[in-house]
Amino acid sequence: MTIPSSREACLALDAADPLAGFRARFHLPAGQIYLDGNSLGVLPLATPERLARVIREEWGEGLIRSWNSPSPESGLGAGWVDAPLRVGERLAPLLGAAPGQVAVADSTSVNLYKLLAMALQLRPERRVIVSEADNFPTDLYIAQGLIAQLGGRHELRLLPAGASLADYRAALDDQAAVLMLSQVSYRSGALHDMRALSAAAHAAGALTLWDLAHSAGALPLALDADGADFAVGCGYKYLNGGPGAPAFLYIARRWQGQATSPLSGWFGHAQPFAFEPDYRPAPDIAQALCGTPPILGLSALEVGIEQFEGVDMAQLRAKSLALSELCIGLVESRLAGQGFVLASPREAARRGSQVCWQHPQAWPICQALIARGVVGDFRAPDILRFGFTPLYLRHVDVWDAVEQLAQVMASDEWRQARFQARGKVT
Amino acid sequence: MTIPSSREACLALDAADPLAGFRARFHLPAGQIYLDGNSLGVLPLATPERLARVIREEWGEGLIRSWNSPSPESGLGAGWVDAPLRVGERLAPLLGAAPGQVAVADSTSVNLYKLLAMALQLRPERRVIVSEADNFPTDLYIAQGLIAQLGGRHELRLLPAGASLADYRAALDDQAAVLMLSQVSYRSGALHDMRALSAAAHAAGALTLWDLAHSAGALPLALDADGADFAVGCGYKYLNGGPGAPAFLYIARRWQGQATSPLSGWFGHAQPFAFEPDYRPAPDIAQALCGTPPILGLSALEVGIEQFEGVDMAQLRAKSLALSELCIGLVESRLAGQGFVLASPREAARRGSQVCWQHPQAWPICQALIARGVVGDFRAPDILRFGFTPLYLRHVDVWDAVEQLAQVMASDEWRQARFQARGKVT
Repeated sequence: MTIPSSREACLALDAADPLAGFRARFHLPAGQIYLDGNSLGVLPLATPERLARVIREEWGEGLIRSWNSPSPESGLGAGWVDAPLRVGERLAPLLGAAPGQVAVADSTSVNLYKLLAMALQLRPERRVIVSEADNFPTDLYIAQGLIAQLGGRHELRLLPAGASLADYRAALDDQAAVLMLSQVSYRSGALHDMRALSAAAHAAGALTLWDLAHSAGALPLALDADGADFAVGCGYKYLNGGPGAPAFLYIARRWQGQATSPLSGWFGHAQPFAFEPDYRPAPDIAQALCGTPPILGLSALEVGIEQFEGVDMAQLRAKSLALSELCIGLVESRLAGQGFVLASPREAARRGSQVCWQHPQAWPICQALIARGVVGDFRAPDILRFGFTPLYLRHVDVWDAVEQLAQVMASDEWRQARFQARGKVT
Repeated sequence: MTIPSSREACLALDAADPLAGFRARFHLPAGQIYLDGNSLGVLPLATPERLARVIREEWGEGLIRSWNSPSPESGLGAGWVDAPLRVGERLAPLLGAAPGQVAVADSTSVNLYKLLAMALQLRPERRVIVSEADNFPTDLYIAQGLIAQLGGRHELRLLPAGASLADYRAALDDQAAVLMLSQVSYRSGALHDMRALSAAAHAAGALTLWDLAHSAGALPLALDADGADFAVGCGYKYLNGGPGAPAFLYIARRWQGQATSPLSGWFGHAQPFAFEPDYRPAPDIAQALCGTPPILGLSALEVGIEQFEGVDMAQLRAKSLALSELCIGLVESRLAGQGFVLASPREAARRGSQVCWQHPQAWPICQALIARGVVGDFRAPDILRFGFTPLYLRHVDVWDAVEQLAQVMASDEWRQARFQARGKVT
């Protein structure tokens, strides 16, 4: 694409943007350019009222009967009991999943544990989990914990970031039980080829488990068509489900009923309310549920997912890449020679919806930008990360953000950055 | 105690009730007597506003910086990252736990899995989990799932409901690794003697894991003094944390750092934001955390726990028993010969905060009561369950509820009950 050469050209692109109208669905804090929606998505305007209704009416007035399915006769019931699967079904089209394969439950970490354990059950003779050294830490921690729990007989085989398809093919030997990858790297934004890697895993007799934390809601997904076996992902980034929103999981229909979640709580039982003494797993995706579902979080996530209604995911991807290319082009032209090295793949097809820059002063630069209202993210040791959320970001925001970055670099501000950041959540 | 013989006598007791003022802290639906707070606690009046602030200000305006600890200098930060331990510390006094031993995270089922696995790690030579056949089903399901996960080498040894201390002593042999019990039975309201059973377990070399779902917020607890090793519990019953509120867990300080949670997610890491490649458990109670904490649910639970500020738990217990005795006395006097058999222990010291009645028509009677605005609960096959939540129930409510029950039995209403109840959550 041609990089717009002026702020006016960016405004013209925004005026012609078919997704421009979606921005009005979200609350965007005044005076801020928020490039951190891949860490915590912004608040949909519909969320406060929906949550107020859930709290005051469903909980406050309906109390226990709100667990029941809505009854047309009595007008009672809020369907809380169905929420994990109902919200899963609403999410499924965004993942390229046919009905009956997605549920919302627990956290990404807990869901990874369940599905990794199930994948290993399905390959009992194999001992290797193949993953990437640069995978998001909790994914690796969960694998380590499961391996210890299973007696240390399994091995975590880690390929370096940037390993090629051929590297993965070589690593996927006859001991490989499962290939566990984040589709988009939290650090670099590199996008794995799900179809090619799934095929490679299957050719080796292994299964795949994908973490979609940085891809769900950020680009078109085709879990079914790409041959994914299992997947998990996070509700609080591109899906705008709120801080610590419940996570989701996907089990391809062909594996449902073939393995059992080690977290065999009552909501995964075939008849949770029969209070049977023995666990009997639900035959469908409900088997992956565990405890009582978190209704406040589920309700907020449902609103977040609703914001995607009417979104053409091909248009979303096109805009995501346009914003990313604009960032790359502007930084490389306006800030040439100032130490910014592109840490994301240059090829658009190999990139998610973020652009990362390596810079020896990434941390103070990030803080100086935040002080100016441009909220990006820092990832140790030297990565400045900008997330592009096409539903609510404009070309002119990218232009203005790079302008602010240029001013930060031209001034002494970044040298003086003293912002205290204790805990930041990706 | 003497049972009040009139509605006026009940009103007089309410007028003299030292806890009477707490009722004004809660929203109680008009025209309803809610005896199901042990299934889902009512809405504290402070919750809607607090959640609106969390959603609009902390999430909507603060966005990612709300994860940070509050900064007196900048005024920024909502301390989300500290919420699991902060809310745990607020809860600890209600559990009789010194600081540093309670955290809020995940669901009761997931927490049971973590702590049961940790208890088994601490007793590697032992193979038996001792529990009760009438334990809440998810507790047994979780144990069954863990046993399968560990290769089927462990055994779940179940004693019947009502087993004596001597029975437990006999069951706690040298193969017993852990005694896992619900302190108060969800079905009968029977209360286990935590101190005596913990001593019996320890004498046998076993550990204890207590499920406090029906005791936290319902009676005075003394986890430390009673020698509990591990405990879990639920936020949405007597703690009024809202539907599917996050659960809590307790690890006695002497066991912290001695065993590792199998759910080794990033929030349990010693330095979650250092993004180290290998899992390194936090040395303290934070080790039992796993994924990103659910901020909406945590915030609502924090409000629920705040309602206990200023509550004398001995007074709460006295009122709980007074309400329960009133129910027993009134039902047995006014409904004598109508088939109601007390299914809860008659001795007050052996009862939690609920009264259960066995009746062959328990289900339609329960539905007919609900139609009259008296919300109790049915537990298969024949139990009518009334929960007494002393913070917001009055003596006169019990009087009126029994009056309604008498009218239901005197009429044909219960024979006509056709209320459709699909899923009810204890």
